[in-house]
Amino acid sequence: MKLLKLLPLAALAVMPTLGFAQEVTEAAEAVDATATLNMEMVFIFNSLLFLIGGVLVFFMAAGFCMLEAGLVRTKNTTMQLTKNVALFSLASIFYYLVGFNLMYPGDAWMFQGWMGGFSPTVLEPVGVGMADLVDVSYASVGSDFIFQLMFCAATASIVSGALAERIKLWPFLFFVIVLTGIIYPIQASWSWGGGWLSEAGFSDFAGSSIVHGAGGWAALAGALILGPRLGKYKDGRVIPMPGSNLPLATLGMFILWFGWFGFNGGSQLAMGTVGDVADVSRIFANTNAAAAGGSIAALILSQLLFKKADLTMVLNGALAGLVSITAEPLAPGIGLATLIGAIGGVIVVLTVPMLDKLKIDDVVGAIPVHLFAGIWGTLAVVLSNGDATLGGQITGIVGIGVFMFVASAIVWFILKAVVGIRVDAESEIAGLDTTELGMEAYPEFGK
Amino acid sequence: MKLLKLLPLAALAVMPTLGFAQEVTEAAEAVDATATLNMEMVFIFNSLLFLIGGVLVFFMAAGFCMLEAGLVRTKNTTMQLTKNVALFSLASIFYYLVGFNLMYPGDAWMFQGWMGGFSPTVLEPVGVGMADLVDVSYASVGSDFIFQLMFCAATASIVSGALAERIKLWPFLFFVIVLTGIIYPIQASWSWGGGWLSEAGFSDFAGSSIVHGAGGWAALAGALILGPRLGKYKDGRVIPMPGSNLPLATLGMFILWFGWFGFNGGSQLAMGTVGDVADVSRIFANTNAAAAGGSIAALILSQLLFKKADLTMVLNGALAGLVSITAEPLAPGIGLATLIGAIGGVIVVLTVPMLDKLKIDDVVGAIPVHLFAGIWGTLAVVLSNGDATLGGQITGIVGIGVFMFVASAIVWFILKAVVGIRVDAESEIAGLDTTELGMEAYPEFGK
Amino acid sequence: MKLLKLLPLAALAVMPTLGFAQEVTEAAEAVDATATLNMEMVFIFNSLLFLIGGVLVFFMAAGFCMLEAGLVRTKNTTMQLTKNVALFSLASIFYYLVGFNLMYPGDAWMFQGWMGGFSPTVLEPVGVGMADLVDVSYASVGSDFIFQLMFCAATASIVSGALAERIKLWPFLFFVIVLTGIIYPIQASWSWGGGWLSEAGFSDFAGSSIVHGAGGWAALAGALILGPRLGKYKDGRVIPMPGSNLPLATLGMFILWFGWFGFNGGSQLAMGTVGDVADVSRIFANTNAAAAGGSIAALILSQLLFKKADLTMVLNGALAGLVSITAEPLAPGIGLATLIGAIGGVIVVLTVPMLDKLKIDDVVGAIPVHLFAGIWGTLAVVLSNGDATLGGQITGIVGIGVFMFVASAIVWFILKAVVGIRVDAESEIAGLDTTELGMEAYPEFGK
Repeated sequence: MKLLKLLPLAALAVMPTLGFAQEVTEAAEAVDATATLNMEMVFIFNSLLFLIGGVLVFFMAAGFCMLEAGLVRTKNTTMQLTKNVALFSLASIFYYLVGFNLMYPGDAWMFQGWMGGFSPTVLEPVGVGMADLVDVSYASVGSDFIFQLMFCAATASIVSGALAERIKLWPFLFFVIVLTGIIYPIQASWSWGGGWLSEAGFSDFAGSSIVHGAGGWAALAGALILGPRLGKYKDGRVIPMPGSNLPLATLGMFILWFGWFGFNGGSQLAMGTVGDVADVSRIFANTNAAAAGGSIAALILSQLLFKKADLTMVLNGALAGLVSITAEPLAPGIGLATLIGAIGGVIVVLTVPMLDKLKIDDVVGAIPVHLFAGIWGTLAVVLSNGDATLGGQITGIVGIGVFMFVASAIVWFILKAVVGIRVDAESEIAGLDTTELGMEAYPEFGK
Repeated sequence: MKLLKLLPLAALAVMPTLGFAQEVTEAAEAVDATATLNMEMVFIFNSLLFLIGGVLVFFMAAGFCMLEAGLVRTKNTTMQLTKNVALFSLASIFYYLVGFNLMYPGDAWMFQGWMGGFSPTVLEPVGVGMADLVDVSYASVGSDFIFQLMFCAATASIVSGALAERIKLWPFLFFVIVLTGIIYPIQASWSWGGGWLSEAGFSDFAGSSIVHGAGGWAALAGALILGPRLGKYKDGRVIPMPGSNLPLATLGMFILWFGWFGFNGGSQLAMGTVGDVADVSRIFANTNAAAAGGSIAALILSQLLFKKADLTMVLNGALAGLVSITAEPLAPGIGLATLIGAIGGVIVVLTVPMLDKLKIDDVVGAIPVHLFAGIWGTLAVVLSNGDATLGGQITGIVGIGVFMFVASAIVWFILKAVVGIRVDAESEIAGLDTTELGMEAYPEFGK
Repeated sequence: MKLLKLLPLAALAVMPTLGFAQEVTEAAEAVDATATLNMEMVFIFNSLLFLIGGVLVFFMAAGFCMLEAGLVRTKNTTMQLTKNVALFSLASIFYYLVGFNLMYPGDAWMFQGWMGGFSPTVLEPVGVGMADLVDVSYASVGSDFIFQLMFCAATASIVSGALAERIKLWPFLFFVIVLTGIIYPIQASWSWGGGWLSEAGFSDFAGSSIVHGAGGWAALAGALILGPRLGKYKDGRVIPMPGSNLPLATLGMFILWFGWFGFNGGSQLAMGTVGDVADVSRIFANTNAAAAGGSIAALILSQLLFKKADLTMVLNGALAGLVSITAEPLAPGIGLATLIGAIGGVIVVLTVPMLDKLKIDDVVGAIPVHLFAGIWGTLAVVLSNGDATLGGQITGIVGIGVFMFVASAIVWFILKAVVGIRVDAESEIAGLDTTELGMEAYPEFGK
């Protein structure tokens, strides 16, 4: 066992031939060494949870992108792809520049007090030691940042789907900057940054309202101000504008489901004890169950209501199931999680036509999936989490809703007044890809 | 180092100024603390292996879906997507309701004895402590459940590909329920739940026969009872019905390869010691090698036999390589693993045409890939694993085969008699998407 | 706590009622046990980093494949898919047979001295113990092998994109064998195998030059010797040959970004201490930031230069950002990482047209992304890494460039002379899929 000598801790391994005083110190050192090792291991496991979770949630950006690209028509596909890549990149930049510190005051390595929360994120120095950590019982700032960034970006992805096929590129991207740099971080800070909602007893484990509802409210404000696509609602009828590539949409749904294990599992925020890793496991099982429940409920209900199984409902049902369990993926058993998800799937099948009746044109069904199922999921917390109250949950839903809707509406109105947010009718009819971007998504396909 | 005080273990860190009696206790406590920490770490690593493996194998559902959607014709693509999403969801629900407890009696947190194995899965309570664990040397029930569920769902995915383009949606989904809730768990229990096959010396590390062969037998029974697609075999000739989207099929293959690292690697069931993590690493290297061997063998053989490299053979060759190594991905060296995979690739190229000669219509080649290469892989265990015998392996292959084929055939026959399993000729010719679902996968593409 | 008895370490837990001599031994054993446990944990975490990183980088093979399949025309898509699957498989086989030992002499379990470096990789025996490890402070050979293999394969993927739509299948695959078995390992050994470049002070953390530049040089040599596609440069004009499936290309980009967390993060080579996991976290944050910077820079610059946002530039901009940060993803802050990536994006937008002016036909933009941004990234190391010098970096860039270009050119010339590397004009015009492979990628699509 001579290799022991190579390691720092082995410095403690003195020979057992010394006197009593030495021995006393040695035993205490052994105890200390074990405690220190335990701390290190917890820190590494927690950080690793964020890194794995962060990578999985990152991939959700691709999921949203494929889902949306598959559900728009070919003539707007390049635009949808461009928006999705750009929105994620802008979220990355502005969450770094402003959002992270605004959301978690004091979490970053060095907080530039004179700028208030409006300062860029600074990580620990290279090769940081335990003595210098911000919080030795938590995780590395870099892993925390990367995990939280992905949640912020998801909010913007939700907006992008609802407003597809008619919004201008640059005003949309400007909205994304404000959303990811300022609006979302302020709101999320209320619950996750130690703000008033966390003190009001509001409980939203991984963000049914804080992320999905928030994105949904921003999308709803945008959809109302932007108006429906030309020809979508005509003479009291809803004109179907079917998605152009359903395998792509299905792939997107699967990628989102895949990433959601990280979204909810990582939100346990800890993995370094038996209890924490078992909790992360519960969350995985419940997250999967809710998605399954949502998709099967939507499958059966669409068969009953429309006499045909409807794939787009099944896809959105699975996503609604995921959104529904996101506020409390830990406390329920698998059976209850399946039911919570199933009700999310039912909500989607019932509210997609409802939005159409209200002439609110949500291209991919983002508002039913993220906002309506998000509200349901936030309320459903009280079914399994004894600490949550209906009052606290409603406070959160309303507080987040009012703020997100109003703040988003203000930005949309300003953009509309200053630069316009909608392409002209000619462009919309011809498709945004040729008119706005000069690049077809599938130049060789078509009837 | 005052932060030490924050951690539970630090409670042991008493000052080294006490007397001898105290000291005796302290040294023993140090030893205990290290042992406890070690146990915790092993448990966390094992659970983490299942969680990472589970997520990777989950993604195989997307892989099967894309592979199959790419290999069917456009007119049946929406149906294939719908089936794949629904089958995974149903597997999730019924493996929870029945399958897991049926397969692993006693593994779940609380086993409802009065219902026998037919009881839903219950996980550990939230924040479980070490003293309350089911098996402190294994992993969390939730992580085990999520990992095992994915294997069960894979079995159903295999069936879906073989029977594409002619089977009705709802009877297929009913079969999936029986397969994933009852048939597969009973069979898998024989080897992995401490049943008679494990006692008979049968060795199948990650399921060449238990998962892939099982799915293949169920698919074969279905293909025989369902019959070939209309017009597939005409006047003694085989009419090609080429897949409509080969990039999608290739993506599916890559996703399956990606997920297979979790499939085989996670089947080590442990990662908390040097030996276990090195074994998982061996498995990764061998799994990759076998896929590479399978694809290159299929590439070369298709070039030699057909004078043209055949991409669908290359894709199925890679998958056959993966199936072949699945029964023993640990014991061989990388070279032998490559060869085992290569023989799997050869099997695919030779048996795809053979099935056509027998007029068994397997749309995506699932039977050659999963059943024939699965048999080969199960036999090949004896090449590197000294504990396995040819007799034991054949016992497993035959035992699993007879049970899976007969049980599946019974369910297929009942479904055929009661509700019918095949769409009518008109629907099949027009395509299932418009007639059964009313939704085209690519409404804007086509010649 | 009786469960302690089940574990090996618990053997140390003798009762604290023995005499002094016993006590002395016990305290020392406690110290030893903690140090041993620490060593084990570090080894497991390091190996796990390689396994997770390896799986992520594996998936980059799918990313390259989708990116390239989306950017070629439909008539050459099956060929591009076939090449990508085959090149990865061949890299797996030949890096095992020759490359790994050639690159890291002595790292594998058993080095067959008599064959020099030209010997296959041997992994640790099954269930290896600590006493038998090659390097107890590093990671398992299998995990190291799988991680390094993926880097080698990436080099070949880069070449495949640049030479698309005109190169013959088998000569290309022969080049891949030489590249992955011999050329890349020799070159990479100079920096990462303890060779002359590492001694010359050259610093390339995860391979801006060693992997991406190397692939780019091999591609450039190939593109020059192969010549442009027929009709690409006509009467002084550049004829656009737009990619046929931009959602696929976008998916490929996202998969590459996803995999890059493993590419750069895994290159920390260690995760078992607080400092190492915090460093991996920094790398994740910087990698993401550089991709974001690259894509936004390309978006803005393409809008300014061409008056239209250009999706293909945005995709390649993100990839160029990733390549740019790869040489030093640890030392910069997130802001500098974003800027380094942004300059990579600018380079792509400026050099894609430049290559066309030089009539060097690079179908997917691989040379700007991997070679030009790779050079920039290698130089940019000096901005944040105090140990790097401009001289050392230039030495590496030139040394790698000369070797890769010359060695690749020699192989390309030999292949050209002996078997020819280009399909005939008729095949090229009709498309490689029908003429060379007899299989269309999208048989039902088309105008």
